[in-house]
Amino acid sequence: MREKLFTPGPVEIPERILHSLSDPVIHHRTDEHKERLKKVVEGVRQLVMTGEGDVAILSSSGTGGMEAVVSSLVKGFGKALVVDAGKFGKRWAELCEVFEVPSETLFVERGSPVDPEAILEAVGKDAEIRAVLMTLTETSTGVVHDVKAIGSGLAQWEGLLGVDAISGLVADELRMDEWGVDVCVTGSQKGLMLPPGLGFVVMGSKAKAVLDGRKRSKGSGCYYLDLKKYVASFQKGFDVPFTPAISLIRALEESLEMILDEGMESVWARHARMAQAVRNGCIAMGMKLLATARPSNALTAAFPPTGVDAVDLVATLKKEKGIRIAGGQDELKGKIVRLAHLGACYEEDVLGLIGATETCLLHLGASVEPGSGVAAASASLSQD
Amino acid sequence: MREKLFTPGPVEIPERILHSLSDPVIHHRTDEHKERLKKVVEGVRQLVMTGEGDVAILSSSGTGGMEAVVSSLVKGFGKALVVDAGKFGKRWAELCEVFEVPSETLFVERGSPVDPEAILEAVGKDAEIRAVLMTLTETSTGVVHDVKAIGSGLAQWEGLLGVDAISGLVADELRMDEWGVDVCVTGSQKGLMLPPGLGFVVMGSKAKAVLDGRKRSKGSGCYYLDLKKYVASFQKGFDVPFTPAISLIRALEESLEMILDEGMESVWARHARMAQAVRNGCIAMGMKLLATARPSNALTAAFPPTGVDAVDLVATLKKEKGIRIAGGQDELKGKIVRLAHLGACYEEDVLGLIGATETCLLHLGASVEPGSGVAAASASLSQD
Repeated sequence: MREKLFTPGPVEIPERILHSLSDPVIHHRTDEHKERLKKVVEGVRQLVMTGEGDVAILSSSGTGGMEAVVSSLVKGFGKALVVDAGKFGKRWAELCEVFEVPSETLFVERGSPVDPEAILEAVGKDAEIRAVLMTLTETSTGVVHDVKAIGSGLAQWEGLLGVDAISGLVADELRMDEWGVDVCVTGSQKGLMLPPGLGFVVMGSKAKAVLDGRKRSKGSGCYYLDLKKYVASFQKGFDVPFTPAISLIRALEESLEMILDEGMESVWARHARMAQAVRNGCIAMGMKLLATARPSNALTAAFPPTGVDAVDLVATLKKEKGIRIAGGQDELKGKIVRLAHLGACYEEDVLGLIGATETCLLHLGASVEPGSGVAAASASLSQD
Repeated sequence: MREKLFTPGPVEIPERILHSLSDPVIHHRTDEHKERLKKVVEGVRQLVMTGEGDVAILSSSGTGGMEAVVSSLVKGFGKALVVDAGKFGKRWAELCEVFEVPSETLFVERGSPVDPEAILEAVGKDAEIRAVLMTLTETSTGVVHDVKAIGSGLAQWEGLLGVDAISGLVADELRMDEWGVDVCVTGSQKGLMLPPGLGFVVMGSKAKAVLDGRKRSKGSGCYYLDLKKYVASFQKGFDVPFTPAISLIRALEESLEMILDEGMESVWARHARMAQAVRNGCIAMGMKLLATARPSNALTAAFPPTGVDAVDLVATLKKEKGIRIAGGQDELKGKIVRLAHLGACYEEDVLGLIGATETCLLHLGASVEPGSGVAAASASLSQD
């Protein structure tokens, strides 16, 4: 059976992108590759809505991008306030510890978005805080934080707002320049619809100034993921400090073209429609959303209906339907399922996902009205 | 014009491998992916000739693998002796500095292999040295070091012998267990004939014991490339700490099958034949090899004939023949050319390369006897 991915990374990859992965590999120290890098850098800027931000494309997972931010920018700059609303928010704190960056954690109940006021208050109270590190979308809970409110609240602040938009970007709105985001991290295997293997860091002017002013002594622990090296190489005519993942960058060209042809606002609107249909379908089938507010348009985290085990639901969907969704992580392990509607996800995918979930729930003995999930999803899609 | 790569990474990728890059991406937390990882780990072991070495597959360039060794294994273990015989040997020293690993450099004249006795002497004189860090093949000079002699000389030593085999592996013989190599690093875009994007670290039992005994405190600077995480995940049934480069790992399956079907000794013998033909061809055309001894079978570094500029030769081959070779790096920039015969390189490729070089040299005004290069290469290939 052909497996279909509804996981929050990796996601289904459109044929056009898959095929481009088989294109011959060109050498990276060539004009042709420099032209390509120039083009994709411009595309990535449009994706995160920045006019002139510096873009570093790393051969790494998204976590490599997060490490690059902590080791290249935050270390030596000051204390970090970490928004811990789940597994991925917590990762920032782990990185701070490993790089000896003093940090303070703002714990947020799982399933809730962070209260922007709590961030502003913490920053206002402690002058040593020079960076706020958070996620756009917390992939472990399916919540999207109000980065816009946080960014505008911090507009006069001289510190850095760093946002892990690894799973949220493309699905959930993000406007780097307008919202005052100083650093944004993402990865290839989410909204970009690529295989994993690329990490991205985009730096606004404030972050760039911090990077420029940084003096690195022995013992920085920052070499392969040193953003300064990437920015300096890019500035020398789109060169790279280390051999880049050439075939993934080729595929990135296609991905960016697809996304930007559709247009960022249309892409966000499509994700919002698909997400709403999935949420409505889930609720109609007796599932309870984990997100108490601000559910993400990238994925939906939900508790299965009474009597159904989350692990069983994941396994049954895989076994009976060839559909792969994700389960919970850390403290949510075994408790929730996570359905991604991210990237190349359209009406037929959503209806297929909800339909399959409905059938599996019935097989697992849930008291679901047959057809109710799909009906609700379809009704949702027909609005607008 | 279709470009053909004779560069020491990236290299030409066989169609079979290119096509596999377009296979659908499977999820990494699945039995299918675990089976695949198990298979490629076994293949990588055979490649480096280790029975039970631990294998970490990183989403990174080869440099990421080197950083992983320094940050995960050498840092906190002791002083390193770095063999600096060129740009890539020197990279170990740069990494030691960034990770505050005390190190001492053994400088080797460019174009010469390191004298194994010099290493044994340095290690014998300084009990604080706990690691020797070197390359198998120094890509900047085309020299292959005598790792066998060094490993056997260090057989009774309790320190670690770490070898960057990024560009040499598959082309130049390496027998990890038999020679006493404790850690071996490689990358995907060289002898493995893959696109760039994967870094590999293979650890023998001594290195594994160091890793196991390692206690990590705050400030280690080691997170994304922490080998301990990779080994621990692999031991839990071939899981991974971070989303891996799934499509490159799929292609790795094909690459390993091709190499291991041919057999390591046959692959080495093929590279030796191709390399000898290139060297003979170069000499016949009035070029002077940079390697004064132990030339690598992965690439040939040579000075152009009198009156020909190295940079012009690289550019002319590209422009007239669509053939990309490499120039010199660092202190050798503008002085030499480097012709790689690495990976999917066969008789027709070598004759094509030498023939094209010959024509371009003639166009650049060198006094080359027309046909002499190809004749010498062909004569070399016909032996055996």
